[in-house]
Amino acid sequence: MHGPLKIFAGRSHKKLAERICHILDVHLGDSEVVKFSNENLMVKINENVRGCDVYVFQTSAPPVHEGIIELLITIDALKHASAGRITAVVPYFPYVRSDKKDKPRISITARLMADLLETAGADRVVTMDLHSPQIAGFFRIPVDHLQAVPIIADHLQQADLTNRVLVAGDAGEAKEVGRYANRLHLPMAIIDKRRYGDDEKPKPAHVIGDVDGKHCIIVDDEVSTGRTLIEAANFLKEKGALSITAAFTHPVLAGEAVARLQKSVIEQFVFCDTIPLQGKQSEKFRVLSVSELFAKAIRRIHDGDSISQLFR
Amino acid sequence: MHGPLKIFAGRSHKKLAERICHILDVHLGDSEVVKFSNENLMVKINENVRGCDVYVFQTSAPPVHEGIIELLITIDALKHASAGRITAVVPYFPYVRSDKKDKPRISITARLMADLLETAGADRVVTMDLHSPQIAGFFRIPVDHLQAVPIIADHLQQADLTNRVLVAGDAGEAKEVGRYANRLHLPMAIIDKRRYGDDEKPKPAHVIGDVDGKHCIIVDDEVSTGRTLIEAANFLKEKGALSITAAFTHPVLAGEAVARLQKSVIEQFVFCDTIPLQGKQSEKFRVLSVSELFAKAIRRIHDGDSISQLFR
Amino acid sequence: MHGPLKIFAGRSHKKLAERICHILDVHLGDSEVVKFSNENLMVKINENVRGCDVYVFQTSAPPVHEGIIELLITIDALKHASAGRITAVVPYFPYVRSDKKDKPRISITARLMADLLETAGADRVVTMDLHSPQIAGFFRIPVDHLQAVPIIADHLQQADLTNRVLVAGDAGEAKEVGRYANRLHLPMAIIDKRRYGDDEKPKPAHVIGDVDGKHCIIVDDEVSTGRTLIEAANFLKEKGALSITAAFTHPVLAGEAVARLQKSVIEQFVFCDTIPLQGKQSEKFRVLSVSELFAKAIRRIHDGDSISQLFR
Amino acid sequence: MHGPLKIFAGRSHKKLAERICHILDVHLGDSEVVKFSNENLMVKINENVRGCDVYVFQTSAPPVHEGIIELLITIDALKHASAGRITAVVPYFPYVRSDKKDKPRISITARLMADLLETAGADRVVTMDLHSPQIAGFFRIPVDHLQAVPIIADHLQQADLTNRVLVAGDAGEAKEVGRYANRLHLPMAIIDKRRYGDDEKPKPAHVIGDVDGKHCIIVDDEVSTGRTLIEAANFLKEKGALSITAAFTHPVLAGEAVARLQKSVIEQFVFCDTIPLQGKQSEKFRVLSVSELFAKAIRRIHDGDSISQLFR
Amino acid sequence: MHGPLKIFAGRSHKKLAERICHILDVHLGDSEVVKFSNENLMVKINENVRGCDVYVFQTSAPPVHEGIIELLITIDALKHASAGRITAVVPYFPYVRSDKKDKPRISITARLMADLLETAGADRVVTMDLHSPQIAGFFRIPVDHLQAVPIIADHLQQADLTNRVLVAGDAGEAKEVGRYANRLHLPMAIIDKRRYGDDEKPKPAHVIGDVDGKHCIIVDDEVSTGRTLIEAANFLKEKGALSITAAFTHPVLAGEAVARLQKSVIEQFVFCDTIPLQGKQSEKFRVLSVSELFAKAIRRIHDGDSISQLFR
Amino acid sequence: MHGPLKIFAGRSHKKLAERICHILDVHLGDSEVVKFSNENLMVKINENVRGCDVYVFQTSAPPVHEGIIELLITIDALKHASAGRITAVVPYFPYVRSDKKDKPRISITARLMADLLETAGADRVVTMDLHSPQIAGFFRIPVDHLQAVPIIADHLQQADLTNRVLVAGDAGEAKEVGRYANRLHLPMAIIDKRRYGDDEKPKPAHVIGDVDGKHCIIVDDEVSTGRTLIEAANFLKEKGALSITAAFTHPVLAGEAVARLQKSVIEQFVFCDTIPLQGKQSEKFRVLSVSELFAKAIRRIHDGDSISQLFR
Repeated sequence: MHGPLKIFAGRSHKKLAERICHILDVHLGDSEVVKFSNENLMVKINENVRGCDVYVFQTSAPPVHEGIIELLITIDALKHASAGRITAVVPYFPYVRSDKKDKPRISITARLMADLLETAGADRVVTMDLHSPQIAGFFRIPVDHLQAVPIIADHLQQADLTNRVLVAGDAGEAKEVGRYANRLHLPMAIIDKRRYGDDEKPKPAHVIGDVDGKHCIIVDDEVSTGRTLIEAANFLKEKGALSITAAFTHPVLAGEAVARLQKSVIEQFVFCDTIPLQGKQSEKFRVLSVSELFAKAIRRIHDGDSISQLFR
Repeated sequence: MHGPLKIFAGRSHKKLAERICHILDVHLGDSEVVKFSNENLMVKINENVRGCDVYVFQTSAPPVHEGIIELLITIDALKHASAGRITAVVPYFPYVRSDKKDKPRISITARLMADLLETAGADRVVTMDLHSPQIAGFFRIPVDHLQAVPIIADHLQQADLTNRVLVAGDAGEAKEVGRYANRLHLPMAIIDKRRYGDDEKPKPAHVIGDVDGKHCIIVDDEVSTGRTLIEAANFLKEKGALSITAAFTHPVLAGEAVARLQKSVIEQFVFCDTIPLQGKQSEKFRVLSVSELFAKAIRRIHDGDSISQLFR
Repeated sequence: MHGPLKIFAGRSHKKLAERICHILDVHLGDSEVVKFSNENLMVKINENVRGCDVYVFQTSAPPVHEGIIELLITIDALKHASAGRITAVVPYFPYVRSDKKDKPRISITARLMADLLETAGADRVVTMDLHSPQIAGFFRIPVDHLQAVPIIADHLQQADLTNRVLVAGDAGEAKEVGRYANRLHLPMAIIDKRRYGDDEKPKPAHVIGDVDGKHCIIVDDEVSTGRTLIEAANFLKEKGALSITAAFTHPVLAGEAVARLQKSVIEQFVFCDTIPLQGKQSEKFRVLSVSELFAKAIRRIHDGDSISQLFR
Repeated sequence: MHGPLKIFAGRSHKKLAERICHILDVHLGDSEVVKFSNENLMVKINENVRGCDVYVFQTSAPPVHEGIIELLITIDALKHASAGRITAVVPYFPYVRSDKKDKPRISITARLMADLLETAGADRVVTMDLHSPQIAGFFRIPVDHLQAVPIIADHLQQADLTNRVLVAGDAGEAKEVGRYANRLHLPMAIIDKRRYGDDEKPKPAHVIGDVDGKHCIIVDDEVSTGRTLIEAANFLKEKGALSITAAFTHPVLAGEAVARLQKSVIEQFVFCDTIPLQGKQSEKFRVLSVSELFAKAIRRIHDGDSISQLFR
Repeated sequence: MHGPLKIFAGRSHKKLAERICHILDVHLGDSEVVKFSNENLMVKINENVRGCDVYVFQTSAPPVHEGIIELLITIDALKHASAGRITAVVPYFPYVRSDKKDKPRISITARLMADLLETAGADRVVTMDLHSPQIAGFFRIPVDHLQAVPIIADHLQQADLTNRVLVAGDAGEAKEVGRYANRLHLPMAIIDKRRYGDDEKPKPAHVIGDVDGKHCIIVDDEVSTGRTLIEAANFLKEKGALSITAAFTHPVLAGEAVARLQKSVIEQFVFCDTIPLQGKQSEKFRVLSVSELFAKAIRRIHDGDSISQLFR
Repeated sequence: MHGPLKIFAGRSHKKLAERICHILDVHLGDSEVVKFSNENLMVKINENVRGCDVYVFQTSAPPVHEGIIELLITIDALKHASAGRITAVVPYFPYVRSDKKDKPRISITARLMADLLETAGADRVVTMDLHSPQIAGFFRIPVDHLQAVPIIADHLQQADLTNRVLVAGDAGEAKEVGRYANRLHLPMAIIDKRRYGDDEKPKPAHVIGDVDGKHCIIVDDEVSTGRTLIEAANFLKEKGALSITAAFTHPVLAGEAVARLQKSVIEQFVFCDTIPLQGKQSEKFRVLSVSELFAKAIRRIHDGDSISQLFR
């Protein structure tokens, strides 16, 4: 039904794309990005794609906006080069936390991103752990929404789970943590944050649930500066937690995040390689690769097979 | 900028539309729905709407699907009658709980509903308490998303709040309950539900947080059969709750819900009139009207004023 | 060019879909509709459809509006499940009589229905005997418009056609009846209806053409309450008709129609099974199946063959 | 709500546009069409139209296709010149008889025309006597569909209507003729045409209804070559008609039509000036102007008033 | 990936289509255009095209507007006949010189043409030597933009190129001529035209570069009346040119162009057969066929091969 | 027709926006951009815009891609805040040189940018000196395309123009330079560049026209690194030019451009302030402000007046 499988990668996370190509035993498509002195990009697709089933790989990583435009240009170039079907593969979707209008006159930018992809010419999207599952509804094109839960939960399960509790950093994360709790048969707790002044950020006020004398695993979808995470960890420690592990999908790790996490009370960080670490390292990090999962998904999508068993 | 204000109402909740018209001191637009023997509807707009700023009122109430199509037909008729701007006013939005793809190969029907409204010709939407705030991102047309929190919280505040706790029926509701907690300066608790078999529905397993010896207020966005709510209430009672109040926005109250709620352990139900009760009554009910809020919103939208202060 | 053929059926007329699957020797696709207490539907497609050439079967039958939304949801679910091509197979198209704006400020709802199907994600439509052939122009997606004329005319031809006349119930049906007349080499007559007061319905005033001493066959595209048909039959009897047969495509047969037709002067009713009879029975009925025709059409469409010879 | 009223006219029927402007007491907008040696057109709008409520006048008249493209270019020029609202005023709509797919693999070109107008940038359409009322459903933009019935029927009513009968040239016209019959309280008859060979055109076979010894008025929506009309007239004469009048809306009068009609048995032709006669003359012609009607319609549309009373 | 290759041709240049079919060894698709007395066209596709990879051939040639509409109708007919992919093959694209807004309130009609093709249902376009390469950006569907440079330059190279200079008729053509200059390693000159009055057309004022005592080859993309070309040639002669050859892609040759060119100072005209000459002849003409190039392009596009080497 | 005028500015060139607001005597709209640690932006519109005629100011300046996305987000936020009409004011349009497909499988990114603006919700665009006038055809929304020619030519005219020649840096610029030549009544020359190897950049080979002993003014639409400009200047000097002035619209001036230009043979640089200089300074620079022109244009557009006289 579809032409030959071709995978192209933007510059954001070429290594992951290469690993996936290696698993799939296909070569990475020959493309090239020229950046002119005025910052403008020219994306050259150096091989024929007529009628092909093309997957374009780009994750949201610094420089974020250049990466977004690069992805849109690549898709546009492929469309006008008569690609048969174009699937944007975006492990960490840009602006995924901008998914609701919680202030007057702001943009739900995750939806705008979905619209832009469609305008550029994407026929489908493959992504992972959107900040909320509703974001899948922002797309009018089919989305395959992969999950890191099986990968991360499997890893956590290898350790002794006695006396452990899963913790949500705030009420909004409770649902997501519930999914882990169900899978790992662990109790959960929630940090109840309150906003004291009008413009102040909400602060941890209580822990709902039991963490005293327990090993806590804080679960989230992404960690950016790490400040919120560390604040939560310190609070849990105050409340008697024995140890803290953090498990999350997307390692944004912006600015001084790595140093901050390294010297924090948190003992271990378990996360996926949906965003390149670009040299950021710590012996506290356990990086789990999504390459097998994405390779399987692309293979099955190309072959027209169901991917539902990838969620087990 | 816009022509004269006109308000039309579908058959789902004419009383609310009339109340709003009364507050706004405008007459309800003259329209009529003919239902043929083959169930097909003909909507006749019996007054000129050329260039008018038209608001079409329809809430999701039984017969739900007939109501949806009636709304679409009305909007289509108005568009082809050269209305200047058409705003669908939908206090309880249809299919609002179908906002994510939590099973393979299902539809995110709330997004489909948004698309259908746009196809029929709606230029804007006014609605209330969507199941998740992300649903606002399903629309490519502007949405004014009103909230019942100020109305319901004001009501709750009139009672003595000592020794009270707000309870989320499951982890997914925690965020919403957090909003009430912040406003009312009350602690919160969450019922932790677990799924034991593969196809079984999740069941209350623990309460995270403290409810023993407390008066509980369970908060939700809608109540349909009431079964989940009653199950939660019974569970809280088992866990030592002194009394249970339920507060929610949309009284779906399907089937035998009223009888069920009436004889339940729950002492009081506080909710809004976004859906007509159609004779369903109980001395346990406290119905708060959204008519003032909608009237203010429509007035301000028509006048081009900001509505952000309606959220306080 | 297209993936494997798959046929799914909504709940409106599963029997017809099963008969067609039987003829085509394919299994009916595994799907399931869950109806929640608040009337909302969840359509689950229980088998993989990636890249498949999918036909979704739904006819317009009570509950009409639930059936429409069910069809739209099914198409949406299939689209987001990456179906290759989605063809809505709708033997009796909803709102087909709402095909013109004969009153001010009404909707041409048949066109709205076409738009909704396209919005949901239908790539093509197969339907039968639209109230007027112009309705095919309401679609921007390809439509295969099948005709019952060959089926019904073949059946009529098995009887003795001597001294017979085809009758149009009003001037608007004359064209359609002409098609039968040409095929069966029979004369035709038309009941001339006039409107006497302003709001009154038009009433039979004369017969144009010769029916005295003849066996009349009244031809129409659908029969709903049967009242118009019986009024015409009585009028023809007054004008000297020897006997009356009624031939039509779509048996809407709403409300008390069957009892009404049963005790009417009409001797026989010949029609197709485009709408399920759901237990409505009469020894006066001759039901002709469209299953062979639809099966052939689907087979040829899937194979990329022309269907023009199905019209002979 | 809308900016100032401006009327522009294509070259097809400038006289009618001027007459309408005269009635409305506005000047005809300053525009100009340059035709290059390669036939290409350049439409220059020579006055500012920003925010204006613009009406573009063009009827379908030879050279038909140049006229269509001229209209599309004019609309495009106006859109890009920031006109506020663009209404295409098309008294005789192009390709209006191409409204159904009565042969395999042909285009429903009237719908294509509607799409092209929308693509070029038309916001609304005003037209008259579409070949079938369903054509209004081809547009996704509002259409004001004016009717010549009041104008033509009023004129016919001035004569003695005793012993007259309205005749439809074939079964397909019966409905339209019925509208006249109802208004003029006259009986009607229909020429029953049959197709004898497979590729032959249908030929008059009988008259259904009574024409012997009567004065016949053949009613149609347009007359092109006049051959069909004359064939019908001759047939009616054979069947005993005393005299023949022809009444129709659109005088296409292609090729030798005028000479043919002049020497025919038909005594009088009553029609409207929706298409310019360009010197075609006959003392048998009674030309009724639609300028008053269009002027009233445009005035009311611009003012935001209902036009429904223009249909009486 | 695509169904069988089918080529259909409009009436504009059937000979070229036939030649291409001959080279490709496929039969020309069976289609037929009926022109009614009112000029309206009916395009009948007389063979099945379901799922086929269809190429529709039409060049811009008199009658230009009829040709455009014929192409749109053909595409529409093919789309509704369920063609799999429709590529409009338009060697000389209509309105190609109308590519910018160099006067207030005019249409960029080449872009409108692109929009119309897309609206009718074209999935792709193949064309040649658009007046400016930016026009490819007017399309949202893929365009394969073939070039005549290799064909024409190859021909010119067969002659002795000593003492030759390539000349641009005005500054706007300089870029295009530069492409020839680079390929043929020839010097270039530009005629500098100036506008003396406000409404006057620009007139040759100087030659920039050296033409005295040289053989000049004036290069352009199309020649319409030939007046501009002859004016340029005369001017070059005045400036000392030894001889003049004209090379261009598209022979529009409107009106008396052939006679005018024949008796001009220009010795030879080299051009392509993208537009039919329809009997226009001169011994000064060297007509180069694009049939090989288009045949190769269509073959490769159908096969999913790259066409970039066709540009060498 | 439109609501109140409001002007908002992105962060790219706030000073220009402020100057324009000052001229127009309106306050700059209150908006704010928050940049999160993960680079994501949140644009907050801090005042009501319902029904307003909003102009959003953003020029293409470093960081270019962040600026593009910021503009799209701002437009999206305004649309969903129910702005009446949104005009993107983009003095230097992004990716304007990417206006053709001169290599296989690249994107015409200027067209993509036009599409993205439309998707985000822009109703109109105001811009200046697009690299080619055809780019205006990339938009389906109205574009007001302002020109710097009057501003720059007026400035040049203040100097002694004796013995001056306008020079195009390559053949592609000849047309643009011709416009200056016509206005200033100066002769022109063109640098003829040739490409010697396959991948090499084209190099100046000859000057077409006369520059020996003349004062040269090189004209271009933008200067980025300055390398091409300096190469041209040096070449003209070699060919005997007495002095070199450079005149261009958009001062991209990327990287070390200023230092490079400062020490070049070019004596003066005349350009506009469409891009902020951000501290880049040189006594060779003559910066002409476009603020008056943009202020006039916005005033007239808001008032519904023609802007054609701004081009004189």
